[in-house]
Amino acid sequence: IMALSTKPYKGTRDFYPHDMRIHTWMYDKMKEVVKSHCYEEYNGPMLESFELYAAKTGEEIVNQQLYTLEDKSNRKLAVRPEMTPTMARMVAGQVLELPKPVRWFSFPNLWRYERPQRGRLREHWQLNVDLLGGEPLYADYEILNIAYKLIDNFGGKDKIKIHVNNRKLINHFFTEILGLTAEQALKASKAVDAKAKIPEEVYKTQLQEAGVPEEQFEKLEAFFNSDLETMKSNYPCEGVNELTELFELFKNTDVEEQLVFDAKIMRGLDYYTGTVFEIYDISPENNRAMFGGGRYDNLVGLFGKQQLSGVGFGMGDVTLRQFLETHNLLPDDLHDFVDVFITLPENKFFKASVQITESLQKLGLKVFTPLQKAKFANQLKLANKINAHWAIIFGDTEFNNNQVVVKNLKSGEQKTLDLNNLEKIREV
Amino acid sequence: IMALSTKPYKGTRDFYPHDMRIHTWMYDKMKEVVKSHCYEEYNGPMLESFELYAAKTGEEIVNQQLYTLEDKSNRKLAVRPEMTPTMARMVAGQVLELPKPVRWFSFPNLWRYERPQRGRLREHWQLNVDLLGGEPLYADYEILNIAYKLIDNFGGKDKIKIHVNNRKLINHFFTEILGLTAEQALKASKAVDAKAKIPEEVYKTQLQEAGVPEEQFEKLEAFFNSDLETMKSNYPCEGVNELTELFELFKNTDVEEQLVFDAKIMRGLDYYTGTVFEIYDISPENNRAMFGGGRYDNLVGLFGKQQLSGVGFGMGDVTLRQFLETHNLLPDDLHDFVDVFITLPENKFFKASVQITESLQKLGLKVFTPLQKAKFANQLKLANKINAHWAIIFGDTEFNNNQVVVKNLKSGEQKTLDLNNLEKIREV
Repeated sequence: IMALSTKPYKGTRDFYPHDMRIHTWMYDKMKEVVKSHCYEEYNGPMLESFELYAAKTGEEIVNQQLYTLEDKSNRKLAVRPEMTPTMARMVAGQVLELPKPVRWFSFPNLWRYERPQRGRLREHWQLNVDLLGGEPLYADYEILNIAYKLIDNFGGKDKIKIHVNNRKLINHFFTEILGLTAEQALKASKAVDAKAKIPEEVYKTQLQEAGVPEEQFEKLEAFFNSDLETMKSNYPCEGVNELTELFELFKNTDVEEQLVFDAKIMRGLDYYTGTVFEIYDISPENNRAMFGGGRYDNLVGLFGKQQLSGVGFGMGDVTLRQFLETHNLLPDDLHDFVDVFITLPENKFFKASVQITESLQKLGLKVFTPLQKAKFANQLKLANKINAHWAIIFGDTEFNNNQVVVKNLKSGEQKTLDLNNLEKIREV
Repeated sequence: IMALSTKPYKGTRDFYPHDMRIHTWMYDKMKEVVKSHCYEEYNGPMLESFELYAAKTGEEIVNQQLYTLEDKSNRKLAVRPEMTPTMARMVAGQVLELPKPVRWFSFPNLWRYERPQRGRLREHWQLNVDLLGGEPLYADYEILNIAYKLIDNFGGKDKIKIHVNNRKLINHFFTEILGLTAEQALKASKAVDAKAKIPEEVYKTQLQEAGVPEEQFEKLEAFFNSDLETMKSNYPCEGVNELTELFELFKNTDVEEQLVFDAKIMRGLDYYTGTVFEIYDISPENNRAMFGGGRYDNLVGLFGKQQLSGVGFGMGDVTLRQFLETHNLLPDDLHDFVDVFITLPENKFFKASVQITESLQKLGLKVFTPLQKAKFANQLKLANKINAHWAIIFGDTEFNNNQVVVKNLKSGEQKTLDLNNLEKIREV
């Protein structure tokens, strides 16, 4: 029989304890921020009905990237590729009862069939933060502020720029100015969204297919490179008004310096209807959007009970960790987890070592026991390998006197303690 | 267009914030115990290759309960039905480097296609605790002790019994005493395992199909109802010796009273080779095994590098929560999450309310803002609904004096505070 592979499925990761500690540390830091704003955690099932994604998740994801399956009753299911549809479904399910505004967060794993590459894997975890209800202007403000504070809490606020745009402005330009239909406008906006990733020729062909005649290309380029002041004069509309009010609110705040208007921000997902934004890592090596989000007016209403506009974003763990590594923002001391190592010189001491373990645990200490007798030298080697702070050493002499020797493995100091005085270990 | 359903897929749960708080509380309580023994958290991907389960997961699960799918390169995948194969794969991947004994835990979600019923859902979360290496006797002791301490940490130690058995004893009886082949013995043990859940006639037919002649049924019944002393006289073997040593170690410990020998404990999974156990809720309404586990000698070696025997268990969140609810062991105060509610009487105060929010957050308080102007009465109604501790109230008069009114919503007391003295809120 051929041995089974120890590798995980292509494009996925195993979280060995060291990686898991980093993962948990990132999650805890994110929770600090969102919980200080009273966001509440939720979760939903890993598999959902296929229809949930067919409704509003973009075509590329549904047709090319979704993991689908059928259950034994021929229900068509999908492994969730994003969390927003689940969130919208759940909010809709209790839309009348939930206190508004609804502030929710989650940190689910998501699946997309992608060609694995830097920053993109088939399974990743994503912090989802959503705010439904309230004045849209104030809610957009809070969500952008939280996106900023998340990065700030990792020590990275001056390593990012927050690019902001508004879908209403894009729609105004494509439909009112260029005269495209809604469907053409969507196609054209996808071409602009993909521009940096595709050859110039493909980009132009896609624009033409979307109904943009070649003589308009220059106008289109000019539009997408306009600043907000130019937009105000040349393309006045609701989108520009919303952007102006939003930038006004951020005046004289910590966020202001990181905030830039960028008409090229589209977001791949079809459901955005107002403010959209992307957070860029400004370092040259990660030169792309780390994460982003926006306002969606029409998601909760898909479930028929009541409309409720929301705004939110998803921040993936893969790009976040790359960001933290690039800027040296991960802590060095995520290795320590063993307080005390208890040696086992002979099997007859096993029950005694269990009792010492339980006494030390009652003092709040984390205790590692080797579960196998060995020479002191070998056991101390293991104690050092797992980075224990103290080792407890004993033989017949100590035991007959109800004592143990405590050795501080960092300083080398050692001391004999009575068994009923084990709390003094912290002084060794 | 028909509205989408707000229900999750059959047999799965949505975790709205209240359920999520209970879920997180349970997880945190479990982590306290395993971390005090230096178990380290790990995780693996949600989808694994189908072969991983075909190798050792029981036939019933693989053929009837597995969610399988193919990716776009025709790789056959499965949604993980249990965590042990992933754990074994990962340990095997670093078997030479990992310090021994390996102490790992995880709290993954798992999927099985089951008919949803009390205590059984298609998606559940399961604490997995595994210990690989060390003297098997000592390792078995530690794992059983931790299973006990987990329940003890929830306040339920006298609501359970721990039923212990050993696969070697079962194998000895079926092969040496009854003369069955290994395959027949497995079939017979499955019949015994299912006995309580199937009609008497089906049970008997299954035994006969497994090669147990009808004249042996009485002997078989007697065997499965024997106590450990009887086993020692009538069926001496390695399994009985291991059981005797294990029960000896637990003499005069807290666990002893909860521990019972039970020859009927089998565990459904094929990979157990030594000690097996199940934790029973002793209340009549949940009268069945809550969780269990055992020793597996041959899992890590499937991956070809090196054999490493382990012992572990999985404790599901659904049965655990039922246990805690039945015995009234869930805390009542899992609702509080809002410290301060900041009213918004008029839009012109929005920026001021943001500044107060940030000052209070710097004091470690969780702050809820309504993001929409409304009358005080309506806002206070919302503040009470979300169970806020304090409300901050202000109008032009307060603001012109750089002050706010703080109201303690629990006591009704209120006090005017200067904006640069907000830390005094804790005294109101």
